[in-house]
Amino acid sequence: MSYDFLWQIALILLSTKVFGLITRRFHMPQVVGALLAGLLLGPAVLHILPNDSQMIRQLAELGVIVIMFSAGMETDIRDLKNAGKSGFLVALLGVLVPLVAGAGLSLWLAPTENLLQDFFIGTVLTATSVSITVETLREMGHLQSRVGNTILAAAIIDDILGIIALTIMTSLGGGSDSIFMVLFKIVLFLVFCAVVYAVGFRILDWYFDRSKGQNLRRYPIAGFVVCLLMAWIAEAFFGVADITGAFAAGLMVGATKKSGYIASRLEPVQYLLLGPVFFASIGMDVVLPAMTTNILIFSILLILIAVFSKWLGCGLGAKLCGFSTHECNQIGLGMVCRGEVALIVANKGTEIGLMPDALVGPVVITVIVSTILTPILLKLAYRGKETAKPEESVLDTKSEALDCLDIVTDRLLTAEKEFRNKQ
Amino acid sequence: MSYDFLWQIALILLSTKVFGLITRRFHMPQVVGALLAGLLLGPAVLHILPNDSQMIRQLAELGVIVIMFSAGMETDIRDLKNAGKSGFLVALLGVLVPLVAGAGLSLWLAPTENLLQDFFIGTVLTATSVSITVETLREMGHLQSRVGNTILAAAIIDDILGIIALTIMTSLGGGSDSIFMVLFKIVLFLVFCAVVYAVGFRILDWYFDRSKGQNLRRYPIAGFVVCLLMAWIAEAFFGVADITGAFAAGLMVGATKKSGYIASRLEPVQYLLLGPVFFASIGMDVVLPAMTTNILIFSILLILIAVFSKWLGCGLGAKLCGFSTHECNQIGLGMVCRGEVALIVANKGTEIGLMPDALVGPVVITVIVSTILTPILLKLAYRGKETAKPEESVLDTKSEALDCLDIVTDRLLTAEKEFRNKQ
Repeated sequence: MSYDFLWQIALILLSTKVFGLITRRFHMPQVVGALLAGLLLGPAVLHILPNDSQMIRQLAELGVIVIMFSAGMETDIRDLKNAGKSGFLVALLGVLVPLVAGAGLSLWLAPTENLLQDFFIGTVLTATSVSITVETLREMGHLQSRVGNTILAAAIIDDILGIIALTIMTSLGGGSDSIFMVLFKIVLFLVFCAVVYAVGFRILDWYFDRSKGQNLRRYPIAGFVVCLLMAWIAEAFFGVADITGAFAAGLMVGATKKSGYIASRLEPVQYLLLGPVFFASIGMDVVLPAMTTNILIFSILLILIAVFSKWLGCGLGAKLCGFSTHECNQIGLGMVCRGEVALIVANKGTEIGLMPDALVGPVVITVIVSTILTPILLKLAYRGKETAKPEESVLDTKSEALDCLDIVTDRLLTAEKEFRNKQ
Repeated sequence: MSYDFLWQIALILLSTKVFGLITRRFHMPQVVGALLAGLLLGPAVLHILPNDSQMIRQLAELGVIVIMFSAGMETDIRDLKNAGKSGFLVALLGVLVPLVAGAGLSLWLAPTENLLQDFFIGTVLTATSVSITVETLREMGHLQSRVGNTILAAAIIDDILGIIALTIMTSLGGGSDSIFMVLFKIVLFLVFCAVVYAVGFRILDWYFDRSKGQNLRRYPIAGFVVCLLMAWIAEAFFGVADITGAFAAGLMVGATKKSGYIASRLEPVQYLLLGPVFFASIGMDVVLPAMTTNILIFSILLILIAVFSKWLGCGLGAKLCGFSTHECNQIGLGMVCRGEVALIVANKGTEIGLMPDALVGPVVITVIVSTILTPILLKLAYRGKETAKPEESVLDTKSEALDCLDIVTDRLLTAEKEFRNKQ
């Protein structure tokens, strides 16, 4: 066995933290620093960290699963239901506008062979990757707000719309997936989640009640097992993203009595290992393609179209649902991030011949830029007027109380240490 | 990417916990259950979990590194120094007696070709794997005792003596490693550790003081980075086991002011992910060899010799250092576990032709049985008279206080949840 993963993980932990602290100095979210650390150390710049380690890849996948599971635990299903209607409109316009805008740009400038390829470029732009937005909103304390819930709902619906769009494109392009089968599976997944939710949290609560006063470790273990299983089931049986399954598991575990304790124990697992590996690995995946002037111009336009069309579509959807202009701006920017989803779609496209090789480079660049831009733009969008919400003050109290407990723990352990040393 | 690792980790977490609770019902350490869970689900019995997953293997390696790092943090370097002299004698006799006894058994019964091969069987029996013992002692609250420190010191010295023995054997067998180079590297490693210790914990303490009152997450991240780097450096530059490096890192981080806080944050990482994967993977590595009657008889005798010779050698060493008979028994049994070290040695032997293929099976069986027997025997050895020690009462208070904090956290979060629900 090679032991290189030891220094690799150490370097990732150290660099994401140091870069995170630096970006915070500049009043930017720490997640921007973590992404830049991966970009700098990966093949794109210094090439210190490789991007072909299976271990790092799978740890990163665990990381995004835990992030979405935590987001699910923090989300109240009733708030999400309320946000569902507006989320649907946000997601729908957030898919249609980039689809048409991307196809239009491709038709105008890209070296594509037919209209199907143009629309595939549009399809790539429909994808939304919500994990970076979730982490940014959480860092700023805005995840549990009407805007936060709408973004979460829209991102989930976007994931489903994205699968449908991809399936339509591939079946038009001669792929073997049947659109009806895909729709059927999605409906089945939603039914499955509803059943698991209705039954699951009662079973968990019964179990938690039954084992009261015992060792508390069993609670986070049970929660984490449910998270992993739901993530796997979503991917393996329903063709839905694993993070959507993890989010559904989070909603369910969040409805149990022990959700707070479970979240507090999962937190170190996330920030001590899985989270940094995930954020860094996004940057590490970047391999800059060879550039010609034409491709460079196309890339810049694609970035502009990608950011602008998503912002416009989602913002418009939010406006139609009665959000204020300020909130529309936040929702639109929160959905800009493309992340790994767009890369997976592009990859699928090259496999079945719908994606010209020359355009993979611009797509990669668009994904990087949109991913790094999202937390920066979100931060700016929130810098304007602060909207005081009752939930936030509760959250502040909770977070302060937890910090106090941390400090009490720390004092207690220091005192015990000194006592032992004096003995 | 295959998503199978999601259900595999879920199954490992669930089964190790369930089996752990079952073995605890029978007043046995939970670690026995975790080992059995891996054995049952692995290729040896049900063959549900594969043993060729690189991800699981490397997570397991991270697990044993974190276990030894935590053991280092809990150990006071002064206690370890005091235990060093007796530890040396325990380790020395614990290497010599199994070496001679194993060679004797092999000479008498095994189908070996020359005396060198007989002595190689003895060399395989010299290895000690301390992680299972550490976990068992910690579970019983006896890690921080004179016996615990002696076992830790002896296991480290055993690791070094084992490397020397293996190098002598391989150089006699025609290998390329020079014994002087190996000795030189070991001395260099010890000097390196001493320098890092002397400088490192002051630097860490200076940094911890400087960033007082800030976000506390940086402390465990810094500690974990040091742990990973020391583990890697030990393996990559000095040819010493990574867990020895992690233990040295733990000693250093344990001397800083924030060690208690760091340990409390690393705990969930260990019990929620890395620990269960490590224990299960030991069981999962077991592939039972094809058996003839002769090999079966030889296996049984090898197990007996392995357990008895280690117990006798180490117990004798402890007796010479003035330990009570009861404590000698505990020390001897704590060193019985062979674990992965013996398998690595055996593997090295087959590579250079010192280990007959027919004997790999018995060695594997010996490793399994000694690993599962160790926590059971230790538990029995501690069931006799309980030795009340001042450190233990402090530890109990600390552990109780931490449990209380856990419960307070839990209550607080539940109250916050109910408050939010009523809103």
